[in-house]
Parts: sequence; structure tokens; C-alpha cells
Amino acid sequence: MLGRYYKDFPINRNQGISNMTQLYIDAAVGFINKEASKGPFFLLWAPDATHAPTYASEKYYRTSRRGRYGNAVRELDAGVGTILDALRKQGVDNNTLVVFTSDNGAALVSKQDGGSNGPFLCGKQTTFEGGMRAPGIFWWPGVISAGTTSHQVWTQMDLFSTTAQLAGVSPPQDRIYDGLPLANSFTYPQLEVPRPVFLYRGDRLMAVRRGASKIHLWTFSTPPAELQKGINYCPGAEVPNVTTPTPTDHSGRPILFNVEVDPGERYPISPSSSTYRNIVPMLLNVIREHNEKLVPGEPQLNWCDRAVMHWAPPGCETLNECLPVPESHPTLCVWPH
Amino acid sequence: MLGRYYKDFPINRNQGISNMTQLYIDAAVGFINKEASKGPFFLLWAPDATHAPTYASEKYYRTSRRGRYGNAVRELDAGVGTILDALRKQGVDNNTLVVFTSDNGAALVSKQDGGSNGPFLCGKQTTFEGGMRAPGIFWWPGVISAGTTSHQVWTQMDLFSTTAQLAGVSPPQDRIYDGLPLANSFTYPQLEVPRPVFLYRGDRLMAVRRGASKIHLWTFSTPPAELQKGINYCPGAEVPNVTTPTPTDHSGRPILFNVEVDPGERYPISPSSSTYRNIVPMLLNVIREHNEKLVPGEPQLNWCDRAVMHWAPPGCETLNECLPVPESHPTLCVWPH
Repeated sequence: MLGRYYKDFPINRNQGISNMTQLYIDAAVGFINKEASKGPFFLLWAPDATHAPTYASEKYYRTSRRGRYGNAVRELDAGVGTILDALRKQGVDNNTLVVFTSDNGAALVSKQDGGSNGPFLCGKQTTFEGGMRAPGIFWWPGVISAGTTSHQVWTQMDLFSTTAQLAGVSPPQDRIYDGLPLANSFTYPQLEVPRPVFLYRGDRLMAVRRGASKIHLWTFSTPPAELQKGINYCPGAEVPNVTTPTPTDHSGRPILFNVEVDPGERYPISPSSSTYRNIVPMLLNVIREHNEKLVPGEPQLNWCDRAVMHWAPPGCETLNECLPVPESHPTLCVWPH
Repeated sequence: MLGRYYKDFPINRNQGISNMTQLYIDAAVGFINKEASKGPFFLLWAPDATHAPTYASEKYYRTSRRGRYGNAVRELDAGVGTILDALRKQGVDNNTLVVFTSDNGAALVSKQDGGSNGPFLCGKQTTFEGGMRAPGIFWWPGVISAGTTSHQVWTQMDLFSTTAQLAGVSPPQDRIYDGLPLANSFTYPQLEVPRPVFLYRGDRLMAVRRGASKIHLWTFSTPPAELQKGINYCPGAEVPNVTTPTPTDHSGRPILFNVEVDPGERYPISPSSSTYRNIVPMLLNVIREHNEKLVPGEPQLNWCDRAVMHWAPPGCETLNECLPVPESHPTLCVWPH
């Protein structure tokens, strides 16, 4: 019992086998089959795979040369295909927007059992491209032409604003939304909004990206104490003055990269260049405005409570697998970094 | 006049513009149009792009966000499409094997003006995957099914043996061929030959790959003297004991990687593991046999002679651009590494 699964689908951590992804796929297809005929529906399908510990069902076990991570990706890929097929069978494929994305770049701490960030620097836990850049695939036959590419910089927050835009609804106006309605990306990809995206680590603004430009105010790779434990957010990577093992303040002279020409953040643009002298002051102004207007939210992750974990998930009664839920004792969480 | 181009297609190195790739494309299409109707033909199309200095023609200038390297790739890609179209127009597309490959991984010394090796370690000049792994795309409609993937380890030398096999000819038997006839890869990709490939740097055997396994007998990244000059074969990469700045002998205890699970050569397999104890002695035997049977060739690149450069390439007379060819003075070349 680890909060994310119960006895019905245990993970054999030794072999990397679990039926969990199949259960997620079945649940999605069941939901679509039930809802699609009734009218508009919304499904957030957030499968557990390929999170660590990595696993796949018996059917996909040892089907990939990439090891257990490859098995998990194959099963997830097939699951997406099964979900798209369900939409086709229900005849709603031309009337449904499907978005495939990820919450972060590959978690390189999983070593061979995790994904790869290809050319991008470092991984999850960092504000380098390997931590922050994630896939963004939009599927909507009849509306989005196959093969369309948009260079628009998106964030997950834009999904809320964009789906509201597409649904023709106005969200409540008594609060601030950081997302933008960006449905133009699908049909007019050339209409790019040069919006800044602010990359935080905890409550520290580490970097800002706007179009091709990214500046680092602070850099931070893996703390030495974690390295000693064999944990590494940047395995095999070392960019001088960039992959700094402790938080390093560059706000006096930010590090500038062009992440379209140099997606690997290897080649800082010289502070004496005209590019730097044009772009950095503009981005510092954007940051100043951001800091002035920022209304800090109440962090929802500051409190931990074992009572909210999945002691008695739906279906546990029929399986006779419900565990007693402990009393609620919220405590301040420990977030070392 | 630098040996690889003449005045007819100069390279504007400041902007990265040259018409050279278009001339190469025209030459290929002209050759196909002339030869395809006559019978079997062989074309080795070795375009100059995307070698440094990087360029594209005016049509592709600034068409890519990846900078001048991206422009060059787009033009090369379009050139391949034009060549395939020429085969289709001549009606020989179902009767022609097209191979797309490269002589090495991306030359990371070109920094932003060069390619990326994605997840692979280091670049050209090294025997890590980033230096040695190259694309291998085979196109033969009607024979090779679209989307076929083979995990067979190939080398460029196999192209000679395989095309001879396909043409039904036996090469002269008075010499040793290192290549293998591997046409089975196209139609029976599951029939893999577990052959070793020997990775040299100069005349030193650095590493051996066989299937998923790769052992490094020696490691060597960028010599310190080159680093001081700003030349780096492994920019941003550092794998302890692997990306060694001087040639380092590991032959007593070779470094073993599984380059299918760990294509980035980040996680050496522990010498105390059963995997290591099974695979390394087997590969050391393969190396012993290789060393015993090896008949060293006469290096063809040991002699340099300015007279053999392109002082008077074909067509120079009509352009009145022929330069006088200097007298032949072969000298031993300097190959510092």
C-alpha cells in the first residue's frame, strides 16, 4: 500500500510487472463508451506509467530492447491507440480534441529505468530544458491538419484557458489566470504570441523563456548530499557555470541561451553581444512587471496528511481490500529543495 | 579555393549561403534521368552539406529556427525527396535500393552550427555512441515494408558486401572483406547476426560492440590542448572515468555498457555483476581472435599532397576558373590524434 495502488494491481518491482496500465485503459474506454453518446464529455486520463517504479503488464514484459522503461512506453502507446479507437468507434473522433502531454521532462534519477531527454539538459527537478520541456501533441481530425507544427510556447495552464475558449465559456472573473487561450496554435500556427513563461523551483524564479530566448537568473543542478546518495538530476552532463551543484545567483548578469538554435543549453550567449544587450534588458523588464503584479497563491502542497492517501479506493469493497483510513493529522510537509 | 569547392559555388561563410547543395541535387537527378532507362546503375550521392562550414542556398536561408544548420538539413532533406521523385518519374522506384546514412555522428565541435547527437554521448572524433552511431535508412518500395525496424548492427563496410549480394556478384576472393552480406535485415529483420564491430581511433582499438553490449578498452574525449582552443568533442558531457581527457587504458577491466537500455553510455555495468562476468570474457575472446587474424592494411591517408586537391574540377574550363595544379610533393600527413 503506497498510496498509488492497492492489492488488486500490485507492482512486481523485481521484474517490473503490473496490470495497472491495462486497468487505466479499460477505465478510459469504459468511460468513453458510456459518455460519448450522451453529449460533450471531458476525460483527464492520467495514467500512472511511466512513473517510477517502472512496470508493464505481462503482455508487454520484455517486448522492448529499452528494458522495463521501453516496455512501459510500448504499453502506454498502445493504450493511447486504444483510446483513439474508442473515439472512432463512437463516431466522435472528428468532434473531440485529444491532448497528449507530460507533467515534466524525463526523471533521469531513474537511470536506465527512466526516459531520455535526448538533446535537452538535465531532467525533472531542474529548470533546464530537460526538466521543463514536455511533449505537446494535439489530435483533432478535421480541425487540426496532420503534421501541423506550432512553435508557440505553451504551458499546462494554457490547457484550461484554451479548452474554456473552445467550449465558449467564460471562467469566473474574480481571480487571475496565468494561462492563455491559444487555440489559434491549431489552425493558424504562424500566429505566435511572444508570451513569457516563468520557470520556478519552489518559490524561487529560476528562469524565464520567451520565444527562442531563455535567461537563467539562478542555476541549480543536483545538491551534493543527493549526489552522495547516488541521486543525480543531470547524469553525464556538465555545462560550466550552468549545472551548478548549489543554487547560484546570476541575476546581476543572467545567462542567456537561444533554445531554438541551442536546445541543449550548452552555449551561453556572450554578454558583450548585441543579442544579449537587446534581449536581456527586455526580459528583465518582463520579470520586474511579473514580480510587481504577482499575487502569490496559497500553496496547496505545504500540508501532508496520510489520511488522504488511497486506503479505500473505489472498488475496494467488492474486492474486500479496503484498509482502515487513519485519522487526519495534517503536518507541514518537508520539501528539502 | 579550399579543395572542396571552386568559384562557381562559393560559400558565404558570414551568412551561411551557398548554392552547392542545389548543384549536387541537379547532378544526381541528371544522372538518374540519363542512366535509369539504360539499365542497372549505381549512384553514390555524397553531398557536401551538412559539413562545416554550414550553408544552404538562398531559398532555404533563414527557413529554420535551428539556425544555419537547420537550413542545411532542410535543403538536404528536400534534395533526398527530389532524388526519390526522380526515381519515381523514371519508374524505377520499385527496383532501386536507396540507402541514407552518414559517415559519423554529429560534429559537436561545430557548436550551434552543427547537429545534435540527441541522447548519445559526445560526437565525431570519439568512439562513444555520439561519434560512431549514424542513421541507417533503407528505402525499397515493394521489397522493404514501410516501418520495418532492424536491430542488426551494421557498419558502412556491409554496404559493399550487401550490394554485391543483392546484385548476385562475387567480389574477388584474393583479399579479406570486413563487411557482411546483410540483406536479410530488410525482409527478415528478426534474423540478427550477433557480429562484433571494432571501433578504432587511429590504429588503436578503443571499443567493441556486439548486439546490445559495448566494451571500452580505452576511453578518450578531448585532449586538453584542443579544449584550450575552444574545441570540444564532448560539450556539456561528463561521465566519470569514461569521458577521459587523455587516452586511458581500461583493457585490464573494460568498461561495459548495454547500449540498448543505456544508449547514452551513462551507467557502466558493475564488474561484480553476472552480466559483466558473462559478457566481458566472451568479448575479450572475440578481440583476441580479431587481433590474431588482423591483416593491417596500408593506410591510404598517411600521405598528403596538395596536387590532388580540386584545382581544376570538371567544368572549370567553361567557367575560365581552372587554377594551375602544383607539382606533386607527397609528404607524410600530420594526424595529431
